Amino acid sequence: MQISEVDTAGQVRVDHDELIAFVARIFTGRGLPADRARIAADALVYGDAAGLGSHGLANLNKLYLPLFDDDRVDPAGELAVTSDRGAAAVIDAAGTLGLWTASAVLDNAADRAQRYGVGVCFVRNATHFGCAGYHTREQALRGRIALLSSNCGAQRIARPPGGRYAMLGTNPLSIAAPAGDAAPYVLDMSTTAVPTGKIRQAARRGDPIPSGWLVDESGAPLTDPTALDRGDGFPTWLGGSPETGAYKGYGLALAVEVLSALVSGAALGPAPEAYTGSGGPTGRDDDIGYFAMVIDPGAARGDSAMGPAAAGMFATLRACAPVDPAQPVGYPGLREDEKLRAARSDGVAMDFALWDEVRKVASAEGVEPPTLVSGSNEVGA
Amino acid sequence: MQISEVDTAGQVRVDHDELIAFVARIFTGRGLPADRARIAADALVYGDAAGLGSHGLANLNKLYLPLFDDDRVDPAGELAVTSDRGAAAVIDAAGTLGLWTASAVLDNAADRAQRYGVGVCFVRNATHFGCAGYHTREQALRGRIALLSSNCGAQRIARPPGGRYAMLGTNPLSIAAPAGDAAPYVLDMSTTAVPTGKIRQAARRGDPIPSGWLVDESGAPLTDPTALDRGDGFPTWLGGSPETGAYKGYGLALAVEVLSALVSGAALGPAPEAYTGSGGPTGRDDDIGYFAMVIDPGAARGDSAMGPAAAGMFATLRACAPVDPAQPVGYPGLREDEKLRAARSDGVAMDFALWDEVRKVASAEGVEPPTLVSGSNEVGA
Repeated sequence: MQISEVDTAGQVRVDHDELIAFVARIFTGRGLPADRARIAADALVYGDAAGLGSHGLANLNKLYLPLFDDDRVDPAGELAVTSDRGAAAVIDAAGTLGLWTASAVLDNAADRAQRYGVGVCFVRNATHFGCAGYHTREQALRGRIALLSSNCGAQRIARPPGGRYAMLGTNPLSIAAPAGDAAPYVLDMSTTAVPTGKIRQAARRGDPIPSGWLVDESGAPLTDPTALDRGDGFPTWLGGSPETGAYKGYGLALAVEVLSALVSGAALGPAPEAYTGSGGPTGRDDDIGYFAMVIDPGAARGDSAMGPAAAGMFATLRACAPVDPAQPVGYPGLREDEKLRAARSDGVAMDFALWDEVRKVASAEGVEPPTLVSGSNEVGA
Repeated sequence: MQISEVDTAGQVRVDHDELIAFVARIFTGRGLPADRARIAADALVYGDAAGLGSHGLANLNKLYLPLFDDDRVDPAGELAVTSDRGAAAVIDAAGTLGLWTASAVLDNAADRAQRYGVGVCFVRNATHFGCAGYHTREQALRGRIALLSSNCGAQRIARPPGGRYAMLGTNPLSIAAPAGDAAPYVLDMSTTAVPTGKIRQAARRGDPIPSGWLVDESGAPLTDPTALDRGDGFPTWLGGSPETGAYKGYGLALAVEVLSALVSGAALGPAPEAYTGSGGPTGRDDDIGYFAMVIDPGAARGDSAMGPAAAGMFATLRACAPVDPAQPVGYPGLREDEKLRAARSDGVAMDFALWDEVRKVASAEGVEPPTLVSGSNEVGA
């Protein structure tokens, strides 16, 4: 790569489809069947393409490849339905790669929903699924409503309000629904104020973090992101202080723990081994639990009236007069959809540090790196 | 009533069961069948007994009896299943009293869950259900996991972030799960920072509200609770500012709207008629939609292992060493359960203003008021 390919903002652009094919080649090289590798690659690249970089390619070298190195993932493992009641099933994910597993179990739930109106899979023994919203969005694009949540297995990151030990993960939750021809609604959230990836991203960049993301032992806000991994900064729950809803964020994290891990029998955050350490993050995110629910509106209702109603509802929100005319009203999923379209037509933008990492991974895995798109050096200039 | 029955804090205590019987007599007097009236009364008194006074007896005269006066409720209406796919059903609630309807549709979902592992009811044409957590807790007491959410029909209270018009209700959401012999886990939350009842309660008392509950047109925090009903104070979403998660609270409100109203075909908050008025609250909470889901863990898993796991998980949280030894760690539902036990044994405490209102309602409805418990004058003294 020539330096002229890098723009003044230190960004390059990589063809979207070529980037997916590149990641898929890496995953097939690690033993994933081709159809799984394609979905897993699409899910991972979605993070960068949709502007959710903390869950994108940066995790390839940092999170996913180490799972393969340490035999913590079984690339060709078979999902096993251990209990089947028609609309609901319990599934042992056999340690398969979560970037694929999450889409597979939502597809399984969708088949159930087509028959029963609703379909639910309780999943144990799963691994990290990347952006929850990638997987639910795929269902919304097919006219369905999907809900996906995940605990963090035995990894403990956040403390119950007033507690001294970390007992829960960031416990992400996503729900998506169609919005007619417009971008689907896709809520994708951690139940902490922000996911740890955003705190660590700031730490890598040497940036301070806004007040409200981390607190110290006494509950006072911290702006130093490195406090998280030092074990003396603790993620705050969605809602902030008890007066403004911290117990709701905590309560939602417990909802995710119940739905995703307690029913399926996955590893739980609140387990006695949490009573150790400094109060900072402990444990590993193995044996993760998912809750995957799909609603098939046509099957549930017996008619096709929900589609136009959904289109109307989300169009109404977008048409709401804004307080600031330069800031139109939107809904979760809209901005991500715009970025995704731009990435598909103009390439996925990545900063030089990430691009450098991608090339190193390519070399280490013995796979050709993707080529930069023509004119890439003008990005952001 | 003698003045000696009122304690120095202006509180009286009323026998818990007698209070329920009193409210049930009022509801049967308004045409509710006795079995429905009993459940509706239990649900309403739960608000006061569990320490959630903004959703308790204060709403009898303010919210529920006016629904009867205005023929906005059909006390003996029959729930109609308009679509049935086994695990999922769409139900027309026929304008029945939500305090009863919500429990009835969760029972319906529970029957479905016993057969399919999961059961879901999408409900339209419903009315206000009081404390969502009352209804889900009843399922948790029977070993099930329950989720209940409700939009606010055509009543619009909160504005989308950056929007000029109110387009959504406070859209409450509750989830409950068993915790062995301990108090069930019961999350019961509005998707705004606080429910409007808490803001109006402060307004009635002449108290200021904490920063983070209401904002003005520019987004600056307000501490005057009367701004809400003047139309120049707007409820904030759970999460506070965009940096700390406002889009998550808004996104959760949309999740409730989708699940509760879009699938069932109930009235939607985001409808073109919202583009009117001052930007403050508009519309009426008629044709409310509910989403009611029950998971039967034994049926879904095919074994009874979840019960002990749930007991262990919630016991582990309670055993977490607290930062402040005087403030033990808990979980949503624990404090409400303690208050409920105290109310059942010692009577339901209510301030004199509410007790006075109860006696006036009794007189107007031609029903004997409940008697005060012996020693009531010592409450809080």
